[in-house]
Amino acid sequence: MDKEKMDRQFQFCLELDKEKLIERQTYLSDGMRRENDAEHAWHMAVMALIMSEYSNSEIDLLKVISMILLHDVVEIDAGDTYAYDEEGKKTQAEREMKAANRLYGILPEAQAEKFKNLWLEFEEQKTPEAKFARTMDNIQPMMLNAATHGKSWVEHGVHESQILNRNAKTKEGSQELWEYVKKEFIDVNVKNGKIKKD
Amino acid sequence: MDKEKMDRQFQFCLELDKEKLIERQTYLSDGMRRENDAEHAWHMAVMALIMSEYSNSEIDLLKVISMILLHDVVEIDAGDTYAYDEEGKKTQAEREMKAANRLYGILPEAQAEKFKNLWLEFEEQKTPEAKFARTMDNIQPMMLNAATHGKSWVEHGVHESQILNRNAKTKEGSQELWEYVKKEFIDVNVKNGKIKKD
Repeated sequence: MDKEKMDRQFQFCLELDKEKLIERQTYLSDGMRRENDAEHAWHMAVMALIMSEYSNSEIDLLKVISMILLHDVVEIDAGDTYAYDEEGKKTQAEREMKAANRLYGILPEAQAEKFKNLWLEFEEQKTPEAKFARTMDNIQPMMLNAATHGKSWVEHGVHESQILNRNAKTKEGSQELWEYVKKEFIDVNVKNGKIKKD
Repeated sequence: MDKEKMDRQFQFCLELDKEKLIERQTYLSDGMRRENDAEHAWHMAVMALIMSEYSNSEIDLLKVISMILLHDVVEIDAGDTYAYDEEGKKTQAEREMKAANRLYGILPEAQAEKFKNLWLEFEEQKTPEAKFARTMDNIQPMMLNAATHGKSWVEHGVHESQILNRNAKTKEGSQELWEYVKKEFIDVNVKNGKIKKD
């Protein structure tokens, strides 16, 4: 047994426990509290598993789910940047790269490189896997926001154009899921006033 | 688009949000609150991803992770049964089967069958994937218990024999991980009195 290698792998897994403390803006479906990064990643991974048939392109589902499970690791150091926080977004890339170097660097070298590259692939949004993972990242909170009658949208006074802008590329992962989500989650909540019309 | 099919898939994913409300006995690594089923499943899935090389047998990692992501779905109806709750364990199987029928039944028929069977495979513990998934299910809470200086073990007055009994099959998934965990998490905490000697 290579103890030092295994120590690093356990240390990484233990460090990731902190994702459970990073609060997002989205409320759970009962509206009682906000969800955290770990819950969000699990929920996205489940959705990828159930809905992979709707991907526009053929995808390696293990790669998609691996990407999803670890896509928010950097927030342990860099924090969550809310989708509509324009100030925070200015420094986001730099903060997240520094975080990636420290966090993935806990792993044994080969894994550090592999999983940091997987995160970069997600960020770059060029491959079918990255696109489908991003689609999950976008539709999971919309599903919850719709279930809570738009609680988070109302709190932030979100406009339809902000959502459509944020979701400009959701259809690149799955045209079918985007059409469903647009109709069932967005249009309905614009109509009933939970999302502001522009 | 088959709207009825997609409705059922979204309904299943939304229903699973309730796993975030099911509290386990294990504390987060900061010892401040207990973790929930969704967090636990995510953490196990990450560990499987990072530690699959230690599986005793060759495994289909996508199958392992799929199993892990959904292994606690039944607890939405049946509740969490603590590892050392001997009374609760008497009715656990019946409660969980009823729950599986309702919950997986939300999905379109082919998926309902597929994912219920995957859960049954996990429960039956015969395949290498089921064994490795169970190993993750056992070592993830031990990692957290060790990190909190045995907080949950102390609260429940857990004896070494209970842990060894509970973990009788942990080595069937991974001999190497079991040896590490036995030494680093269990033996250390028996020595310092957090786990009771028999």
